[in-house]
Amino acid sequence: MAKVKAVAKKTGSHAVSPLAPRSYPKLPPLAGVRLSTGAAGVRYKDRTDVLLALFSPGTQVAGVFTKSKTASAPVDWCRASLAGKSARALVVNSGNANAFTGKAGFEGAKQVADSAAAIAGCRPGEVFLASTGVIGEPLPHSRITRILGDLAEESSADGWRAAAEAIMTTDTYPKMATATTNIDGKRVTINGIAKGSGMIAPDMATMLSFVFTDANLPSAVLQELLGAGVKPSFNAITVDSDTSTSDTLLLFATGKGAAHPAIAKASDRRLNEFRAALDRVLLDLALQVVRDGEGAQKLIQIDVSGAENDEAAKRIALSIANSPLVKTAIAGEDANWGRIVMAVGKSGEKADRDRLKIAFGDQVVAEKGERAAKYNEAAATKAVKGREVAIAVDIGIGKGKARVWTCDLTHGYIDINGSYRS
Amino acid sequence: MAKVKAVAKKTGSHAVSPLAPRSYPKLPPLAGVRLSTGAAGVRYKDRTDVLLALFSPGTQVAGVFTKSKTASAPVDWCRASLAGKSARALVVNSGNANAFTGKAGFEGAKQVADSAAAIAGCRPGEVFLASTGVIGEPLPHSRITRILGDLAEESSADGWRAAAEAIMTTDTYPKMATATTNIDGKRVTINGIAKGSGMIAPDMATMLSFVFTDANLPSAVLQELLGAGVKPSFNAITVDSDTSTSDTLLLFATGKGAAHPAIAKASDRRLNEFRAALDRVLLDLALQVVRDGEGAQKLIQIDVSGAENDEAAKRIALSIANSPLVKTAIAGEDANWGRIVMAVGKSGEKADRDRLKIAFGDQVVAEKGERAAKYNEAAATKAVKGREVAIAVDIGIGKGKARVWTCDLTHGYIDINGSYRS
Repeated sequence: MAKVKAVAKKTGSHAVSPLAPRSYPKLPPLAGVRLSTGAAGVRYKDRTDVLLALFSPGTQVAGVFTKSKTASAPVDWCRASLAGKSARALVVNSGNANAFTGKAGFEGAKQVADSAAAIAGCRPGEVFLASTGVIGEPLPHSRITRILGDLAEESSADGWRAAAEAIMTTDTYPKMATATTNIDGKRVTINGIAKGSGMIAPDMATMLSFVFTDANLPSAVLQELLGAGVKPSFNAITVDSDTSTSDTLLLFATGKGAAHPAIAKASDRRLNEFRAALDRVLLDLALQVVRDGEGAQKLIQIDVSGAENDEAAKRIALSIANSPLVKTAIAGEDANWGRIVMAVGKSGEKADRDRLKIAFGDQVVAEKGERAAKYNEAAATKAVKGREVAIAVDIGIGKGKARVWTCDLTHGYIDINGSYRS
Repeated sequence: MAKVKAVAKKTGSHAVSPLAPRSYPKLPPLAGVRLSTGAAGVRYKDRTDVLLALFSPGTQVAGVFTKSKTASAPVDWCRASLAGKSARALVVNSGNANAFTGKAGFEGAKQVADSAAAIAGCRPGEVFLASTGVIGEPLPHSRITRILGDLAEESSADGWRAAAEAIMTTDTYPKMATATTNIDGKRVTINGIAKGSGMIAPDMATMLSFVFTDANLPSAVLQELLGAGVKPSFNAITVDSDTSTSDTLLLFATGKGAAHPAIAKASDRRLNEFRAALDRVLLDLALQVVRDGEGAQKLIQIDVSGAENDEAAKRIALSIANSPLVKTAIAGEDANWGRIVMAVGKSGEKADRDRLKIAFGDQVVAEKGERAAKYNEAAATKAVKGREVAIAVDIGIGKGKARVWTCDLTHGYIDINGSYRS
């Protein structure tokens, strides 16, 4: 924990989130992946800010990206490179997003990719890039390219925690997850890292996350698994409703683990366990991002049921999760369920006031269009006192359901975001 | 000003907003309108919380309401009563929204309307109601009905400021506006009051506002004028993106001013000056609501031009106005234009990164997809230092434009909303 605090201090952010995991998982080496981190001084001083991952030949890749109309240069680069299906290197920097940086931004991305390609002995299109940090400032790409050679020489199969730390911005702790599973009885491993922690909103792959496996799966299969897995995980979280220009989630499969039969389709039932393990890793990472939401003091889980359909349920759940009034009430440990009513009402989705049911934890506070007969203020307040708050809303008109997560809105968010650039 | 501070203190809210008007307009008596306020103890103690307005026979009415699917009982009541076109009384209470209160809520509203109708000598359907305050708690309607008789006896043509104060909740100052204009050369007057100041988002008539005129205009004409006037005023402001269950804007015309020719259509050119005056009053009141947004320290005007069409421009402008990251940056006096880029990108509207132009005040900070060549950090920062901040964004792809207003997001908002009920 000491090391994490040190990193948080160096990035100028606040104390480690009270919602941080009590311990961090130790990610095992993964055949076909070598890692290295360095301090390029992109923006931060005295901390690592570049991650280089090198993949063995034959590594397949899939990705999902922000839906922002002002996506960053690295997002454009990755989208184009994904067509080649093959990956040999990943370069990630923190401190500068290389977003809204025009032609210079594209050139900067290309320089980094060219440099990494020369070192890895591959095509530039086999290099994947991600940048996170300030938007609109030119990327000092030469600070990155000049250390890539050294990074490659120092790369090793260990260093997962260092990798997770190098990509942090306002994060207060490194985000890692690992799972061991099997494909047709053959052991495979999945390792993932992610970073938050502001400009987090769903309908995309939130911020940066990189997931690696030694399984032997083609890009098309990976893409289908990732597309499905991102929905109930990264696409079901929100910190502040602000969708980033840089959101990137990449999944790399080296095929260098235990040999297993070739799998051509994502629907192959031999992938069932792998799919479940991948989903667990994605959800674990996504929740770690919410738990480190800027200023977060509470993790809020919102379940909506009985909506017209699943899409309506999700929109209602997000209307609640993104409501500043709901989030500040929870921050103040006020079981102000009237604001849930408001958020359901403003979602625009079909709802019937007289069928609505709302619960905090196991305390039903409202039903049939009014305060519950057995309403107990003390019990309702108790349900919002803890670090984790569960809100359940039943719309009562259909079978649609959704679950999303968010965090509370606190003074910490204002502190962090009133002075992020300076 | 002393009196305002006293009211603010009594409501438990914070010091008067630094964006408050330097002085308050004195609203003149308006023929056909009598006002009275009282302290019913609905929720607050030691302050007025009920407004009774009585109208002369023949008064016509128009209204626009929240689009919330969980609208309050008074909103339901007003919508139904509007069909009758005629108004004889208005009863407004603060402290309790009578929203999500089920059948008891409807009964409470009906009790108040019946009581006011008996006093005014009219049908209950000629009584208009509005309630603002906590959602979900039963309305203690008898506290209101028992004082209505006294209020009617004490009513007078003065008392506009007292009326504006009685409807306040977390407002830190009363909101009033007045205009004198003419219809076909005959002098008419428009008086308006409003209240904010949280749960403010557009696409509706924000919160409560009541506008009165002595002009002689039929309900259908009033409705058309109001529907048009609300778009660039109340429907162009947002404090926190949270649409209330209670938003109500009513326009009453007593027809007791100077006699003017009958007007049958809103398009009648003899209404041009009246329309302009009404629009000014609506905009004045709407901006007063934003200036008193919970915790507001800065008024932010956002102009979007060059969008695909006006609707797209409005959605982009609101995406910027509702972004917590934009609002906290302005609160911190950080000209963080990268967050404007983000907000344009997340709006989902058509945009071309390489044509985007952004200015703070007269300082162009970004153009053609990157930081402006003449970018000057000091000048950009200066442009966000004042109490009023202007942000202009040109999308560069069409002719659509929109203007919206919001306020910054500060510690004050968190303070107010973490403990509103308690």
